Amino acid sequence: MNLSLKQAQAAVQAAIEKSNELGLKMNIALVDAGANLTAFARMDGAWLGSVDIAMKKARTARYFDMNTGQIGELSQPGGSLFNIEHSNGGLITFPGGIPIKGADGEVIGAIGVSGSTVENDHTVAQAGVDAANQ
Amino acid sequence: MNLSLKQAQAAVQAAIEKSNELGLKMNIALVDAGANLTAFARMDGAWLGSVDIAMKKARTARYFDMNTGQIGELSQPGGSLFNIEHSNGGLITFPGGIPIKGADGEVIGAIGVSGSTVENDHTVAQAGVDAANQ
Amino acid sequence: MNLSLKQAQAAVQAAIEKSNELGLKMNIALVDAGANLTAFARMDGAWLGSVDIAMKKARTARYFDMNTGQIGELSQPGGSLFNIEHSNGGLITFPGGIPIKGADGEVIGAIGVSGSTVENDHTVAQAGVDAANQ
Amino acid sequence: MNLSLKQAQAAVQAAIEKSNELGLKMNIALVDAGANLTAFARMDGAWLGSVDIAMKKARTARYFDMNTGQIGELSQPGGSLFNIEHSNGGLITFPGGIPIKGADGEVIGAIGVSGSTVENDHTVAQAGVDAANQ
Repeated sequence: MNLSLKQAQAAVQAAIEKSNELGLKMNIALVDAGANLTAFARMDGAWLGSVDIAMKKARTARYFDMNTGQIGELSQPGGSLFNIEHSNGGLITFPGGIPIKGADGEVIGAIGVSGSTVENDHTVAQAGVDAANQ
Repeated sequence: MNLSLKQAQAAVQAAIEKSNELGLKMNIALVDAGANLTAFARMDGAWLGSVDIAMKKARTARYFDMNTGQIGELSQPGGSLFNIEHSNGGLITFPGGIPIKGADGEVIGAIGVSGSTVENDHTVAQAGVDAANQ
Repeated sequence: MNLSLKQAQAAVQAAIEKSNELGLKMNIALVDAGANLTAFARMDGAWLGSVDIAMKKARTARYFDMNTGQIGELSQPGGSLFNIEHSNGGLITFPGGIPIKGADGEVIGAIGVSGSTVENDHTVAQAGVDAANQ
Repeated sequence: MNLSLKQAQAAVQAAIEKSNELGLKMNIALVDAGANLTAFARMDGAWLGSVDIAMKKARTARYFDMNTGQIGELSQPGGSLFNIEHSNGGLITFPGGIPIKGADGEVIGAIGVSGSTVENDHTVAQAGVDAANQ
């Protein structure tokens, strides 16, 4: 199974709605099971630097099938994955990237959101995940 | 003036509809006036290698405010812009990238489409441009 | 609105004058609203390694519409943006990059200065910002 | 001997004046004897893709101490330097890059201009060289 464009676009729209609800301007990226970009949107006035970060969060979440923030806990100085960010052309390991699972529990893609605090990024990303699964 | 997300998403949807009409599977990328990614969609089953090409076509069209195919005519062996593709982290200079102009005729962004013949890529890109301007 | 070359060159000259006043040798870079380079100067004898740092500071400040030093406070080990520097082809997150706002308060570009202590870099960058706004 | 910032800025200004005289919008880059960026200006509305090309032309001219167009004649299919553009992170080998010599005939830097036809790029670059040498 693989994330469809229909699911990805539903995730983008849900993330935009959640952002508007919270008064935020976000970059939203979706990758499929192969970690390849499937859909992307930058809300008007959202940070330009978050284009790349949203994509890297989505890829990072799919690369390791876990929330980006979990990897970040392991990549700190002294941690078991210290500086893993140097791999894969650059990872982003703070919150805002979440894997998306299919009906059978297998990971079929991921979302990455960037443009606010990492807490807000994660909240908006979760709204996207919920919409993709409907 | 700058391409808005609303315009970019209208272009994406029009390009998808045109692709469906023609039986094609496309990657569609939109950049704004600063050549920064604004919206992207990969249709289910579209070439993975066209993710990057669609983005590079959109950037190339905005970088030089002309259709990518026009640059390609000048970048052939013996042409005045031979091997210009080595600049800017990689350009794509065959058809499928088109600048988008605002009401005052100024370039406000560009679209890049990749996934079929360059003729089809250009046709689908033009459908996107038309929708962005409505 | 967008930073003009006239504004960018005024910022460069003010930064050079401030550097001379303080006995410093600086690299000074200006980017516009799209984070694209608009003007640059390296004072005679200034660090060669600061060419890239000045540009990255300017881009970083525009990418996130805040002083580079503010991002650096959040990107420390344990901080919410740890290792954000791996995005966007490399960010610089210590002081010396400052966004430039237009008359309406919107960010229209940014300056990045590198060549001395981060305190001096910031002081010289601020002189550039002040000149751009006159 | 090395190109000074004073010389580089004189070249930039002369190139801007020549561009205005010809009704062109140019990107102008100067590198010193070490092929490191010394000064840069993008005229309002000049092609964004020419930022990188102007810099690469200047570096290419200094890397080989000849006009970029001369290298381009040798880098054609079947030529002795075919695809030399793949080196050094990307070269640009069509006209618009010219070495700058000091009083003793030694190369002290180079200029690169991009934004119009290669003939116009070369004309404007020559105006910059003339000003640097005064």
